[in-house]
Amino acid sequence: MIERVRVAVVGVGNTVSALVQGIALHRATGDLVGVRRPVIDGLGVGDIDFVAAFAISPERIGKDLTEAIFLPPNNFPPLTAELPPSGVTVSRGLTDAAEVDRVAGELAGAEVVLYAAPSGRQETARAYAEAALRAGAAFINITSDGVARDPQWPDRFAAAGLPLLGDDLASQFGTSVVHHALLRLLEERGLTLTSSYQVNLGGTEDFRNLVENGNTKLQSKLNALAVDGSAADRVQVAPFGYLPHLGSHKVAHINIEAQSWGGASVSLDVKLKVHDPSGGAGGSIDLIRLAAGALRQGHGGCLAEAAPLLKSPPGTPV
Amino acid sequence: MIERVRVAVVGVGNTVSALVQGIALHRATGDLVGVRRPVIDGLGVGDIDFVAAFAISPERIGKDLTEAIFLPPNNFPPLTAELPPSGVTVSRGLTDAAEVDRVAGELAGAEVVLYAAPSGRQETARAYAEAALRAGAAFINITSDGVARDPQWPDRFAAAGLPLLGDDLASQFGTSVVHHALLRLLEERGLTLTSSYQVNLGGTEDFRNLVENGNTKLQSKLNALAVDGSAADRVQVAPFGYLPHLGSHKVAHINIEAQSWGGASVSLDVKLKVHDPSGGAGGSIDLIRLAAGALRQGHGGCLAEAAPLLKSPPGTPV
Amino acid sequence: MIERVRVAVVGVGNTVSALVQGIALHRATGDLVGVRRPVIDGLGVGDIDFVAAFAISPERIGKDLTEAIFLPPNNFPPLTAELPPSGVTVSRGLTDAAEVDRVAGELAGAEVVLYAAPSGRQETARAYAEAALRAGAAFINITSDGVARDPQWPDRFAAAGLPLLGDDLASQFGTSVVHHALLRLLEERGLTLTSSYQVNLGGTEDFRNLVENGNTKLQSKLNALAVDGSAADRVQVAPFGYLPHLGSHKVAHINIEAQSWGGASVSLDVKLKVHDPSGGAGGSIDLIRLAAGALRQGHGGCLAEAAPLLKSPPGTPV
Amino acid sequence: MIERVRVAVVGVGNTVSALVQGIALHRATGDLVGVRRPVIDGLGVGDIDFVAAFAISPERIGKDLTEAIFLPPNNFPPLTAELPPSGVTVSRGLTDAAEVDRVAGELAGAEVVLYAAPSGRQETARAYAEAALRAGAAFINITSDGVARDPQWPDRFAAAGLPLLGDDLASQFGTSVVHHALLRLLEERGLTLTSSYQVNLGGTEDFRNLVENGNTKLQSKLNALAVDGSAADRVQVAPFGYLPHLGSHKVAHINIEAQSWGGASVSLDVKLKVHDPSGGAGGSIDLIRLAAGALRQGHGGCLAEAAPLLKSPPGTPV
Repeated sequence: MIERVRVAVVGVGNTVSALVQGIALHRATGDLVGVRRPVIDGLGVGDIDFVAAFAISPERIGKDLTEAIFLPPNNFPPLTAELPPSGVTVSRGLTDAAEVDRVAGELAGAEVVLYAAPSGRQETARAYAEAALRAGAAFINITSDGVARDPQWPDRFAAAGLPLLGDDLASQFGTSVVHHALLRLLEERGLTLTSSYQVNLGGTEDFRNLVENGNTKLQSKLNALAVDGSAADRVQVAPFGYLPHLGSHKVAHINIEAQSWGGASVSLDVKLKVHDPSGGAGGSIDLIRLAAGALRQGHGGCLAEAAPLLKSPPGTPV
Repeated sequence: MIERVRVAVVGVGNTVSALVQGIALHRATGDLVGVRRPVIDGLGVGDIDFVAAFAISPERIGKDLTEAIFLPPNNFPPLTAELPPSGVTVSRGLTDAAEVDRVAGELAGAEVVLYAAPSGRQETARAYAEAALRAGAAFINITSDGVARDPQWPDRFAAAGLPLLGDDLASQFGTSVVHHALLRLLEERGLTLTSSYQVNLGGTEDFRNLVENGNTKLQSKLNALAVDGSAADRVQVAPFGYLPHLGSHKVAHINIEAQSWGGASVSLDVKLKVHDPSGGAGGSIDLIRLAAGALRQGHGGCLAEAAPLLKSPPGTPV
Repeated sequence: MIERVRVAVVGVGNTVSALVQGIALHRATGDLVGVRRPVIDGLGVGDIDFVAAFAISPERIGKDLTEAIFLPPNNFPPLTAELPPSGVTVSRGLTDAAEVDRVAGELAGAEVVLYAAPSGRQETARAYAEAALRAGAAFINITSDGVARDPQWPDRFAAAGLPLLGDDLASQFGTSVVHHALLRLLEERGLTLTSSYQVNLGGTEDFRNLVENGNTKLQSKLNALAVDGSAADRVQVAPFGYLPHLGSHKVAHINIEAQSWGGASVSLDVKLKVHDPSGGAGGSIDLIRLAAGALRQGHGGCLAEAAPLLKSPPGTPV
Repeated sequence: MIERVRVAVVGVGNTVSALVQGIALHRATGDLVGVRRPVIDGLGVGDIDFVAAFAISPERIGKDLTEAIFLPPNNFPPLTAELPPSGVTVSRGLTDAAEVDRVAGELAGAEVVLYAAPSGRQETARAYAEAALRAGAAFINITSDGVARDPQWPDRFAAAGLPLLGDDLASQFGTSVVHHALLRLLEERGLTLTSSYQVNLGGTEDFRNLVENGNTKLQSKLNALAVDGSAADRVQVAPFGYLPHLGSHKVAHINIEAQSWGGASVSLDVKLKVHDPSGGAGGSIDLIRLAAGALRQGHGGCLAEAAPLLKSPPGTPV
């Protein structure tokens, strides 16, 4: 029987909630609903144990991880009536570079560190990467902060024989995935794009952050669509809308106007409704197993196999 | 300069209207809007000349092709204010097997016969194939009647060194194309399909026919989605709706319900609006050039390159 | 404290399931969610007791009403984890006119008979009306079979001092209600209707029946839209689609194309998703209380107040 | 034969373009498509003559009105191939209070002044109102700047026997109109609102302005929905999106989630696509005739009949 992966999480937001709950649900039912890859490097979805967790907010610190994930502003709903306590008590997260050693100490025994704090604090992200290095753990950065994109970090992790996966997790099934697939389909079938837009609405804390520093993210959305040349001028991303009553749902409206043979008009309207945190957890579960598999096989640094799961893998601009 | 392909059309419906008009528009403007492949085997979109046309309805017979395409029940709109006469007078179509020789005579000089009559008359389709064989022309069957699927026909055409392309043209951008792409995307991303449906509404004569003998076509739609196993039970195609006021538009509503990580719900709703005849012409223009290219290079029988453009290529059940 | 209304139900389908469950839920929680009129003639939503129930299918007969409502083909979901048994055993329904007296006997003590069997058996509907008359109970026909529209029946009920409410219950919030409201809004605002359609998809047994004898119902749908003159030609109802996986959901797609000032185009696309049986129960709860109130005040025959809740009130053609 | 109304316009934007073109189209064709009221106080849609026009941008000044309306950033499309010149040369608009007398002089002979400049310059709006007073003309303010809401202005116009209509024209068929109608319908049918949102996307200069000072307008949108109490918390208006490729189109996505009987879920999704300027002109054409009718009958001050056409009629807060 394979040894379970020992995972530490940084940040106890909606994505970690979906991850923790989904694993528990899978263990209880054996269900593989919504799972992209049942087994990676011999590791099943249930072969993951949480061994440490870090958060900043005082309400979370000192709670069991399975309790902390339901505290506001988290709003991802309970997936199962019975969630056994994890036995992991949430620790005080790092707020100062001087604490790297303290955190590294608490990471002892962890094989993989999943960095899932709110985006926008690059120094903090890198401090945790440093702590992982010192603790001899693989590091996964699912935020948009630049770590794996900055060549010095992959180099250091490679030298230490530790995997480094990042940056910025692509959702399992989000607006970019659908919009991109449709624009590609259009192109394959020979249609000429006239114009296209997407609007994203959501009710999570992540969305509130997006609305506040939206411009960067809008550009990143356009990058994710990977449209170029004249098409890029024809695709527009409307401002994010934070609508609290959507809870952990994200709703996207996508429109595509095009022309087929003879210039005849083609219209495509899409409404997509997902639970945002589920999409994040659905990708994280694969990254964790890829990282653990590589670590156990002694492969350090970046992993080509992880790139399709990331928005900004190494090689993209910081 | 390449010699233009000499094409005979059987049936003067909406698809032929879109084809004839689109070619004229391209010649007038040089525009490549909505064109999948600008050049095939050296042949551009404008390198096609119509040399014969056949129809059954008395109103069409004796008219110039560019006039006949606007007669009811055709309802594909004019694409350009100025459509120069084709110089091709619509002939009386074949209604009796005894007329094969007469038709073969009228096909003299044609390189490619595009069979685009209403679906549902297999004997007629095969009689025209016979006439093409006798006249030494390639044959393209864009209807759902079985010709190329019945091995004896490809064999005979191969023996004669004449290409045979068919059966049943896939639209350039129709409901099946979009629905199939989304179901595939779902699968790639690891989502579990809960249920899905599509509804197709249209206002052309083709749609009226579909409504009358809908069951076969509904099954064929499911085949086109290429979903199998348990997924097949979860995808349903609602009855076709004939709504005359839609004119040559087709509207489809597609819904997909699925589950992502942890069983979280994912909903996708799509409205697609296209000009049906444009989608047919956009595929035909490629088949014609593939057939002409093969003919000129002496390749008879079926063409692997044509299969992606067809719903029922050789090898699928009749 | 007001005396509860004693109600007998004929037919134990989805609508009765939603009615029985909704009343129990209200009693347990006091909740008035989705209730149009909390009190009618002094009667609250919970002031209803079921005293008899009739069904044809052997599986239902002999079961407690609260058990029978969950048997297939019923598919309206459980609304509450705890549904106390009603104490009413489902009786064998009437299959022969000779049984009217037997049924009338079993109706003894009932104040209101709610006729909610499948539509399409007018003689059966009338036999139950006869039994209600003999038993001295008010009669409500929520099916499309003609009872209250045939003047002899209101006359007989009026003579007996018994209310008769029918025919054909309008859903609390269905496609017709929404489509009609939007067409009216268009008219009020001075827009010119170009064309409009609706498509209805559902997964209940009622929907399966509709698909089989769809033409009558399609016409009735057009009547419900109350569009006339040239507008009537511009509104089309596509064939009903029976999609079992929708369960008790009904989905409608409505499109409206119009012109505003200067002939500028206006497009409106609506997707409506409801639980069909809930809409039926939401109207029935009002009809029951209207009937009981009238009965107790000695008003027999038809009730003007009920007309807005009905698709075919007295005065409409049978 | 009735005497035509002599109208001066302030601002030569998209709305004035739609108004000028729509009147010309009606005169040429007699068509009443999209007209709410063919005749008001004896005045038909064509009974309007433009006699003066004011604009700020140097490109517009000195041009014939029918030429100026097509200059960027205006993007409402030409409605007719032939638009006869109006004979009205666009004058330099007022930029300084000292110019009121100059403008009043140029208004000589005008019966109605239609103030249709960009919103957000209250002092300018009031300076034109002052000029109208001095010139003895009725004044219509279709912008959101406060004029008719400030009681001193209606009083002064009433004293002078001149009509004053405003403020803020409601579109003939816009997002608010549709969203409000659906929320009202829900309430009438007894459904309980769970949550609702609207998103507005557009490509006109007006939209660009809205995006820049969106907060005020978002609140005004909520006012227009006239939802109050707990419902107000459940309706949200997402940020406006300026998408230039939409041209003069406005697209709105409206979602309503509710509960019917028994708490069953009801979902309603709407996509609305309109030409924004057409909606403004369709209301202006009625206000102009109401103002002229009142002026000719000697009724000064506000007009109750105009209130339904306005978002902020007298009595609403400035």
